[in-house]
Amino acid sequence: MSPEPFKVGLLGHGTVGSAFAGLLGERAAEIERFNGRTPVITGVLTRTRGDFEEVLSGAELLVELIGGVEPAREYLLAAMRAGKHVVSANKQLLSQHGEELFETAREHDVRLRFEAAVAGAVPVVRLLEESLAATPIERIHGIVNGTTNFILTEMARGSTYAQALAEAQRRGYAEADPSDDVSGRDAAAKMAILARLAFGAPVHLDDVPYEGIEHLQSDDLQYARELGLGLKLIGTAERRDGGLSVHVYPAFLYAGHPLSSVSGPFNAVTVESEAITEITMSGPGAGGRQTASAVLGDVVSVMTGGARPPAPPLQLRLLEDVSSAFYLHLEVADRPGVLAAVTKVLGEQGVSIKSVVQRGMQENARLVMVTHQVAESRLRVAIELLEESDFVRSAPRTIRVIEEEFG
Amino acid sequence: MSPEPFKVGLLGHGTVGSAFAGLLGERAAEIERFNGRTPVITGVLTRTRGDFEEVLSGAELLVELIGGVEPAREYLLAAMRAGKHVVSANKQLLSQHGEELFETAREHDVRLRFEAAVAGAVPVVRLLEESLAATPIERIHGIVNGTTNFILTEMARGSTYAQALAEAQRRGYAEADPSDDVSGRDAAAKMAILARLAFGAPVHLDDVPYEGIEHLQSDDLQYARELGLGLKLIGTAERRDGGLSVHVYPAFLYAGHPLSSVSGPFNAVTVESEAITEITMSGPGAGGRQTASAVLGDVVSVMTGGARPPAPPLQLRLLEDVSSAFYLHLEVADRPGVLAAVTKVLGEQGVSIKSVVQRGMQENARLVMVTHQVAESRLRVAIELLEESDFVRSAPRTIRVIEEEFG
Repeated sequence: MSPEPFKVGLLGHGTVGSAFAGLLGERAAEIERFNGRTPVITGVLTRTRGDFEEVLSGAELLVELIGGVEPAREYLLAAMRAGKHVVSANKQLLSQHGEELFETAREHDVRLRFEAAVAGAVPVVRLLEESLAATPIERIHGIVNGTTNFILTEMARGSTYAQALAEAQRRGYAEADPSDDVSGRDAAAKMAILARLAFGAPVHLDDVPYEGIEHLQSDDLQYARELGLGLKLIGTAERRDGGLSVHVYPAFLYAGHPLSSVSGPFNAVTVESEAITEITMSGPGAGGRQTASAVLGDVVSVMTGGARPPAPPLQLRLLEDVSSAFYLHLEVADRPGVLAAVTKVLGEQGVSIKSVVQRGMQENARLVMVTHQVAESRLRVAIELLEESDFVRSAPRTIRVIEEEFG
Repeated sequence: MSPEPFKVGLLGHGTVGSAFAGLLGERAAEIERFNGRTPVITGVLTRTRGDFEEVLSGAELLVELIGGVEPAREYLLAAMRAGKHVVSANKQLLSQHGEELFETAREHDVRLRFEAAVAGAVPVVRLLEESLAATPIERIHGIVNGTTNFILTEMARGSTYAQALAEAQRRGYAEADPSDDVSGRDAAAKMAILARLAFGAPVHLDDVPYEGIEHLQSDDLQYARELGLGLKLIGTAERRDGGLSVHVYPAFLYAGHPLSSVSGPFNAVTVESEAITEITMSGPGAGGRQTASAVLGDVVSVMTGGARPPAPPLQLRLLEDVSSAFYLHLEVADRPGVLAAVTKVLGEQGVSIKSVVQRGMQENARLVMVTHQVAESRLRVAIELLEESDFVRSAPRTIRVIEEEFG
């Protein structure tokens, strides 16, 4: 007598949902071979058909692929309270109601897995939850939004922002309204989730300051190329000064940085710790099949056992103001003494210049500099003072520079 | 009343063993926080002290860090037969007696984990066992030996093989007798383990043909640089023609390949499948703390539950002869008609030339070519015929070329 099938209820049947159902069918026999049980979909709920209570009662595990906060949150809570395991790909939900979900999973001793919510098929959730459970993590740098990485890759090849965005939309990498991606908000949600896993402290999406890529100029990409730097939209989460800093911003990366060669719609995450130095994982960030594969991997994990929900949260102070090196782009009057005047203003705020990259000699010359490490708040004060001066001709532009520290 | 500690017996107390004991002490409280139990080392066996039966009877799990085949094999089998879980970092043992160990783990329903046996802190074993359990894998390319990758990185910067090896020894990356590393045998053992996990078929170390890096010339590295290619010692495991091909050899990689930028003593593995396109993981390949961190991660996994031993083996034919593009380096007489004569010999064996990279014009000119895909056996026949010809002046050199196929 063969064992009972493993009953999976499916909420949502869009691109990822139907890819998941297809992949589960293709792989059921192989999963049975090493797990002893065959996964089967016993019920489907979509916006137009199915009944939640019926899908729930017929399943051991619910896969939630409907997205958005409600009713996904209600469904997951109800499922866990009924003693069912859940798998979700919902980054909005986890970054805004993660603690409530984790707490409910612990209370009812069920599994809650969400590999597909961050970085698609790249198993970074598992890396943090399991492989590095034994390692004190110092820092995470991630490219966790494939849309913006594609746009930046195109811009590095000479496209304007508008051209690159249009190409991303044509290929299906960007939505008609791309604001969630290009503003950095999507990346911020993913970094909130990763920071919770890596550092144990609750991080809400609203706690993560983010900048996007809309204001980047082709110029900036050109400097990056000339200097051998990559320009990427980076999510960071790191221990600093006894607290935790989680941010999303465009940043220049030195050429040897593991993320600087990640191109196109790929995602990648680098995890740094004293014990392991660094581990980098990269792969496709999205796509129906890739996401479905991550979701099915979670289902298989639940079938196998293992992987508890995160422990109750630790309290760590979230730092808004962090130090960084900065690239600073100024359009200035081309007259004697301007460089001295600029460095005086900067110096008075504790901003010291590491290198002056370029200085044009026309009317409205461009002055491009890289600073040493400085607290962002101090740089902002210096920038305001520069804007008020009579020798700066347009709004200064700043981009963070991530320098080598490990290796 | 707090729960019982989780009792760990430790076999071996060298570099990794003592790093493991240190890390476990540092992390015990944190592990207790999310796992509910505190891991403690309840017994240690070294070559000079301790009693195996005593260590065994006092533990729930044995960590084996003594290396080599015997007595490590006897110890692990005895532990599993006594119902104890085991964690090992022993690639020799797993690549030669894996099936016996897996079978014993299944029979006695205990965990057998070995993340540290392949690629150090890079969790590729877990990737294959868990994240990609739901995905049919097509191919693995790995840099799984940090010693040779360090040597090749130094050679790419202009060192000779002898200089690079001496530097690796000075830094502790290579042993006094480096033959296991530089011959490719160490990488072959790791690829045997990865192939079993990815494809389900038993692969013994003796089934893996391997070539090392001892015969590489600085010339070859220089061509790689000129052509924008990386030259790496690559382990491959892939489905081909209904069978399985597992090999280790030096190979040229096109510049965009995820492994071509992996430098120094790092390891990296790229896993390709239709559903996920490709995932790459990289990190430090060895080092006491890194390996200890992977071992402790395995211990935590066992404490959490999950991760069964591999399913009983599938039978897949192991292919010796596989197709590849080749780089071909010939020293030839510089006289009219030589190129035509060479291409005639090659063409008769089905070897067609994709590009002629360089042709010197001195006495003993060098002819460097890249072929289209061809079965290695046919290339070998052509090479033998060329060696017998009067216009080839020394033994031809060949190196595989890995071309872009995904992405």
